[in-house]
This record gives sequence, structure tokens and C-alpha cells, in this order.
Amino acid sequence: MSTKTLRLQIPQWQGGNLEAYHFGGQLLAWLAPAAAGPVATVEVPEPDGSELPLEDGIVARSALLRQLYSTEEILRKEMPDRIVVLGGDCLVDLAPFAYLNERYEGDLAVLWVDAHPDVMTPQHFVHAHAMVLGNLIGEGDPDFTRRVARPIKPEKVMYAGLYDMSPTEWEIVERLGLRMATPSQLIDSSQPVIDWLRSTGARHVAIHFDLDVIDPVQFRSLNFSMPNAPPDAFAGVPRGRMTMAQVVRLLNDVAEQVDVVGLGITEHLPWDAIAIRDMLRGLPLIGEGRA
Amino acid sequence: MSTKTLRLQIPQWQGGNLEAYHFGGQLLAWLAPAAAGPVATVEVPEPDGSELPLEDGIVARSALLRQLYSTEEILRKEMPDRIVVLGGDCLVDLAPFAYLNERYEGDLAVLWVDAHPDVMTPQHFVHAHAMVLGNLIGEGDPDFTRRVARPIKPEKVMYAGLYDMSPTEWEIVERLGLRMATPSQLIDSSQPVIDWLRSTGARHVAIHFDLDVIDPVQFRSLNFSMPNAPPDAFAGVPRGRMTMAQVVRLLNDVAEQVDVVGLGITEHLPWDAIAIRDMLRGLPLIGEGRA
Repeated sequence: MSTKTLRLQIPQWQGGNLEAYHFGGQLLAWLAPAAAGPVATVEVPEPDGSELPLEDGIVARSALLRQLYSTEEILRKEMPDRIVVLGGDCLVDLAPFAYLNERYEGDLAVLWVDAHPDVMTPQHFVHAHAMVLGNLIGEGDPDFTRRVARPIKPEKVMYAGLYDMSPTEWEIVERLGLRMATPSQLIDSSQPVIDWLRSTGARHVAIHFDLDVIDPVQFRSLNFSMPNAPPDAFAGVPRGRMTMAQVVRLLNDVAEQVDVVGLGITEHLPWDAIAIRDMLRGLPLIGEGRA
Repeated sequence: MSTKTLRLQIPQWQGGNLEAYHFGGQLLAWLAPAAAGPVATVEVPEPDGSELPLEDGIVARSALLRQLYSTEEILRKEMPDRIVVLGGDCLVDLAPFAYLNERYEGDLAVLWVDAHPDVMTPQHFVHAHAMVLGNLIGEGDPDFTRRVARPIKPEKVMYAGLYDMSPTEWEIVERLGLRMATPSQLIDSSQPVIDWLRSTGARHVAIHFDLDVIDPVQFRSLNFSMPNAPPDAFAGVPRGRMTMAQVVRLLNDVAEQVDVVGLGITEHLPWDAIAIRDMLRGLPLIGEGRA
């Protein structure tokens, strides 16, 4: 059976209100293996240093909705069987995963590999990238949830690499009954995830991989290494505790069980690359020199 | 007066015997501002994991000489007035700086912004990237020095950011009488370098910028952050102590005094980017999955 894998490049940054996601998305696309199928890039306005508006409880609501519609339009046109999404912030997986659940008529499990649960709503927070899994399940802001024609059932969702969250988030995750495999449970086995996958009976899986699930001591291209951040900028925010090798093993173990039809890689923040890019711009001969 | 600035991309890695310089050079070229003039890339064999041969005291001597000749050929063909070199290891500046000293008939000062002096010879070490400044002055292995038709006079050379070295290196640097501005002397002033520049009377300067002059705490894309390096891998090796902002200031201050006709950026080792590239290759759907 021939299948069509679409690669979707979405250097969205407004969902996390952080300009560096835009460049991080471009570099991620450059770093990725060559695509086997078609490649489409969602048009995202370049950051220009101006502040994004808070619109009815969500920063950059209208810009994010426009990017959501553009993504949907590409999906309608391409009609892929499988999708690789290169973000951008976590919100980039909303349209693609919603599409896949329709495409497979509900026969889709969702593995959310992330240090954070992404089930906030505008009542709790203003950045839409922290709401995307909630939206896929049908929770949260109507502008976003109404784009999910067929919500993912909570029992078809599992977290990997999550281990702690805010009281509000715990409450939502427990109310929805979302499963969770902590980093310690995944050190040398993927069994908790495999067991859940089998229990769902799903033959297809979409995997959201937020790079911040990786231990920031091992990998610095994450928000926790933001240059010049105030010392308390990430106070209380759980840091990833998995290694890259563990994530690679987990995803390959999953792929042996079911058909991986979606994979989103998100939240790439390559601070060193940004620093060197900016430095080169400021040098004589190669750049513009001193401003 | 119209001038021609050539951008030379040389992802050479054999001079430091480290495969990561190759990818680091490619990423550096991608990160750099768009070139205003012609761009040429020196053909460099891709690393394939096999060990490089030690040839008469220098690792990969023949491969390095071939890349040197290729660079010379490009320079002969392009006849640029100015050159931006994007390495690769430090050795990439050999042919371009030798060309510039001929092009300006000896009216060339050389500012060596580096945590290391690069004046070793095969008697002391086997990696040619640690010999390049010596070669430019006329010291070291004849295969390399004979390519420098007009050696740089030692009084036309100054180090910036250097502050310590091995006894052998101290001996050579002192014998040659090479000047040196330490990181502490350059914290908020470029004066030591400006004074030297004026003393040379040179109207042109070529600047070698080894990224390892940057403090590795600020910037991790350097050899000191090599993943899985043994704890003593860099014992005794001086680490850079400058900030990027200090280097940018220094180079712009220099550019106000004399014409910057050469700028080489070298030794970019983007470990995070390499890790993510390799990880993506090992994932299902986007890569080949588990080997």
C-alpha cells in the first residue's frame, strides 16, 4: 500500500510568545533528514521585536488562528496519510493531529512526549502552546476546539516524560484520566507505553515530541538555557529528565507496535546558533559591523 | 574604488582530526549573513568514521595539502580584494592570509583572536590546525611553509584573547616576539590592539577568529563541551575567556583604524545541532528508525 508522508514546516512562535521559536524552527528544518514526500511550509509572520497583543485571554489569538487555518488548508489540499511536523512551538500539532484522527476515523492513539501537560486554558494562562493537547481532547478555548472535528478520547492519550505539574494541571490531567509514564519508568523500558498502546487497540499513533522533555543538562537548545534569563525565570517549572537515547528507543519501540502516522518535533531553541548568527551580523566585513 | 569580497567556505576537519568540524562548517555557512560577492566552497572529503593516517608527523598531511592547493586555485581564479573564510578548523586561514599578504605586498597586519597560539610544529604535535600561524610566519613543516610566498613578519602579528600556553608554545611565541593582549586587557578597551596596529603602519588587516576564544560557559559550541569526553580530555588546555560582545567591539574598533581585508571564523562545533540531527535520523517516520 502506497502512503503519502507530508512534511509540514511551521516556524510558529506566537503560541509561546518567544521569537526564538521562529529561528529554531528554521534550523530544525535544516537539520532534519531529507523528506521522502512533499514539503509544505506554513507562512508565519517573522518576529520583528514588537509586542504581541493579548486578545481575549490568548496572546496573538488571531495570528495563531490564521496559521491554524493555513495548516488546515495545506492538509485539505495534500490529503497525506502520514505527517511529520517541524515546529515551532507546541501548538503546531493541533491541526495535523486533528486531521489524523479524522483521517483514521478515531483509530488514533496520541503519545505526548513532553515535560509539560499542555492542557491549560485561557482561564489559567495566556500562551496557547500550553493548551494544545487540551484542545485536541476538546477542552479549552472554543476558537481552537471547534477546529477539532473529532476530538481525541482521553483514554487514547498518554504522556511520556511528564512527572510533575502545577496543581491546576494535576487537577485537569486527573479529571481527564490521562495516563502518564514518568522518566524513571522509562529509563530502560518502554513497557508502560506499550501496555497502554495495546489497551487502546489503536492501529495508528501520532507522537508529539516537545524537545523540552530532554534533560537540559544534556541538551541546551531549550527554554531553560535562555541567555540573560532572570535567575527565577523558570522557578517551579519542571525540566525534562529523559535522554535523547531514551526517547529514540521509546519511539522505535512504539513504531514496532503500531503505525506511526504523525510525528511533531517542537520547541527547538538553539541559543548558541542564534548568538553566533547575531554576532556575525555585528562583525566587520562579513556583517554590517557596529550598529 | 570597487572591491571584490570572496566568501570561502572550507569545512575542513582533518587539520583538527575531528569530524564535527565538517558539520560545524556547514552550519556556520548557513548561519552567516548573505554574501555580498562570490561564494566558493573548497571540496573537503566527508568524514566517514575511518581513522586518518599519520603522514610524516602530521595527521592527514596529503588531504590537507590537497585542500590547501584547491583553496589557492580558487584564489588565483577569483583574485579577490577581501576574503571571508568560514571554517572548518584553524588551518583554513593559511592560503587566504598568505594570498592577502602577497596581494597587499606585505602591507598586512594579522590579528589572531584565539585562546591558543597556533605555532606548533610536527616536532611537538600532529594536528596541523595548531601550526597555521607559525606556517604563515614561515615556521614549521616545509610542505606548508613553502606555500607562503611572502611570510608575515612577526612584528605584524598580534594575539587577542590568548593568556596562557604550554612551555613549548611560550618559548616559540617569545622567540618570535609575538605581541599579545590578554582577555583581562581587552575587557572594556581595544587600546592594546589599536596601539600595536598603529605601530605596524599597516593599512590592511586580516583577522583570524577562532571561536574557542569565547568563554565556553557562555557559548557551548566549542571543543570543551564535546559530549562524552573523558573528564581529563582538556586538562591544562586554556579555555577562552572573552565574551562575544567583547570580540565584536574589538573587531569593530580595529575596522575603524584599518581596512579589514580578511576575516576567518573557525572551529565551530555545534554539539546540540549534531545531537538533534543524529537523533532525528534515528526516529521513526522522519528518519530511518532504529539501526
